[in-house]
Amino acid sequence: MTDAGVEQTAGGAEASAGAPMTAKGFAFTVEARDGAARAGRLVTPHGVVETPCFMPVGTKASVKAVQPRELRELGAQIVLANTYHLYFRPGTEIVAAHGGLHGFMRWDGPILTDSGGFQVFSLEGTRVMRDDGVEFSSVYDGSRHVFTPELAMHIQEELGADVIMAFDQCAPGTLALPELEAAVERTTRWAAACKAAHTRPDQLLVGIVQGGVDEDLRRRSAAEITGVGFDAYAMGGLSVGERGDEMLATVELMDELLPADRLRYFMGIGDPVGIVDVMARGVDVFDCVLPTRMARTGTAMLRGGGRLNLRNARFAADLSPLEADCDCYTCRTFTRSYLRHLVTQKEILGAQLLSLHNLRVLLRLTSDARSAIRAGRFAEFVSNVAERGSAGG
Amino acid sequence: MTDAGVEQTAGGAEASAGAPMTAKGFAFTVEARDGAARAGRLVTPHGVVETPCFMPVGTKASVKAVQPRELRELGAQIVLANTYHLYFRPGTEIVAAHGGLHGFMRWDGPILTDSGGFQVFSLEGTRVMRDDGVEFSSVYDGSRHVFTPELAMHIQEELGADVIMAFDQCAPGTLALPELEAAVERTTRWAAACKAAHTRPDQLLVGIVQGGVDEDLRRRSAAEITGVGFDAYAMGGLSVGERGDEMLATVELMDELLPADRLRYFMGIGDPVGIVDVMARGVDVFDCVLPTRMARTGTAMLRGGGRLNLRNARFAADLSPLEADCDCYTCRTFTRSYLRHLVTQKEILGAQLLSLHNLRVLLRLTSDARSAIRAGRFAEFVSNVAERGSAGG
Repeated sequence: MTDAGVEQTAGGAEASAGAPMTAKGFAFTVEARDGAARAGRLVTPHGVVETPCFMPVGTKASVKAVQPRELRELGAQIVLANTYHLYFRPGTEIVAAHGGLHGFMRWDGPILTDSGGFQVFSLEGTRVMRDDGVEFSSVYDGSRHVFTPELAMHIQEELGADVIMAFDQCAPGTLALPELEAAVERTTRWAAACKAAHTRPDQLLVGIVQGGVDEDLRRRSAAEITGVGFDAYAMGGLSVGERGDEMLATVELMDELLPADRLRYFMGIGDPVGIVDVMARGVDVFDCVLPTRMARTGTAMLRGGGRLNLRNARFAADLSPLEADCDCYTCRTFTRSYLRHLVTQKEILGAQLLSLHNLRVLLRLTSDARSAIRAGRFAEFVSNVAERGSAGG
Repeated sequence: MTDAGVEQTAGGAEASAGAPMTAKGFAFTVEARDGAARAGRLVTPHGVVETPCFMPVGTKASVKAVQPRELRELGAQIVLANTYHLYFRPGTEIVAAHGGLHGFMRWDGPILTDSGGFQVFSLEGTRVMRDDGVEFSSVYDGSRHVFTPELAMHIQEELGADVIMAFDQCAPGTLALPELEAAVERTTRWAAACKAAHTRPDQLLVGIVQGGVDEDLRRRSAAEITGVGFDAYAMGGLSVGERGDEMLATVELMDELLPADRLRYFMGIGDPVGIVDVMARGVDVFDCVLPTRMARTGTAMLRGGGRLNLRNARFAADLSPLEADCDCYTCRTFTRSYLRHLVTQKEILGAQLLSLHNLRVLLRLTSDARSAIRAGRFAEFVSNVAERGSAGG
């Protein structure tokens, strides 16, 4: 599926001309293809996002342990923030008083907010499915709340991100078929409600396809969600416990089913090999908490997908940098020995420096992938990453 | 004691010409005086330190939550690291393998290490005073160790800081007189042993005067320690529980007793008003963990000595910067509302941003004081700080 030079047919013609978008100030162009992999360009009111692109996650309006100016330095183009958490803390009105998330977290580039759906379904507490939405308990104080498509749109309009997500029911492929089907139906109904409720013309609304790893349900969800019609599409309910081969087969199916001229977003994938795998199947944008979360437990990601646990005693006197060929501040400045010291002594600086490095690994991975796609040597790039990955750790 | 224009007499003549130092690559000059306050210049092999100067504390070879490049940006000139902690973790040999602390923590400016004495006497565990030193239990694993003047010198030579401290017995003014006297005697004996044991010509060795707040003991300790003879002198055993007026009276006494042409270091003072008070009594250098420790509990220092507890609900929707007239990254970039959000949500970024600000407050305070002393308007500066301090909080 990564044969360089084999042109994808579906939608290719329109795509190269640049896709019209309903959102004001937005445009998306697929600039190059190599096999199913795509190099694209998303124009937003807060700047351009060149794809493939990894989005650092700032759940509570902060990419953990990283300053906005450092995100810039690392090459981050767009940052993700979380509707659920920000709705409860500090509350939508406080973010809105800052003119939205850009003013609140002081990141002046593009921002994407998720819909809160994933948290409503994945965080602890008793949920009650209702026709109009989901009733759940806040993780902050246990108070009961109802999230509806309309509320998810309202919150995201107040938060003011450039790219916002439809409210969906994230249904893992491990669910029984009837439940999966119910989730697909609900997701379609809510997608239409979101589209109807969304009023801000300067926000790109992304539709989410569900269906687990069941081909029929995926086909149905894709048909229904594209039928509602969105500027961009996300693949939901993947990378949440299903088998890897089923996940990849589903992404391949999505590549076939989604319009080729629209941005595609795979939610929640953060290991380099996994990212390359879905990139090779036509996905443009990715996000994951993995790089910063791993950093806080003292683990460094390596460019090829291997990992270094800096608590390991073998690094105690290791005077080499984390990665010799990495251009991040951490690798340019400090030894593994020093980083291990910070990690084992629970110094905050350890989390900071590893977060910088881990984010740089993924940001550079997607940027290198983009160059490879444009140069028609993506297959070579993929095999290099796989090779480095198996040698790492 | 802060009358501008009143020239200090003792040692003034030599001081203005620049004091010879036994350590290679070092020189200290008192460039200006205003009352007892001094503006000086310490040349070290790793750069110049202009005084008065606040030293950020990097206990375990990391100024908590702050990167070395940020220390530079904040105007830090010299950083303190801790002999006791580094001896146990990562161990002296690992730091030495990096060519010393400069290579280990990647701070290429001047570094000062304390002697470990304060930790040996203040950290939990059973201590046994011996003729040759102190036997104690490591806070890391409870193992028994003996610190002697010779070992304190050896460790500090291996750590390779520019400025190192004699091994003393830190004796608070609250101790009974016989114990205080024993500490003075021991400190003198150990000071001589340190001077004899110290071999590196490229390190400035600082003698420490003890004696609590007892005038006779201070006089005796000052006479004995200056009798041993050092390139610079520290005032120990202050700011550790004694009354403020007694502490200040003791500093005034020290100003009279210590040679005027030598650098003077007050160990462990970090509140702006306190710093100004001892600066007004002829002290050149200060250090304290206060700014970074307060940052980690969500408290901002204000330039005048007031404090803001950002957990307070009154900042929830406060869109103003922490301090309007502060030039740090935090104040130039974020609102109090956002900082409060980070602090209450326990985001690491909160500790980072408040650490930057709190350090900047003290670094700017001492740098402003220097300008005021040179301009002969230190009294005005002091009353401004006191005024701002009483208005803050």
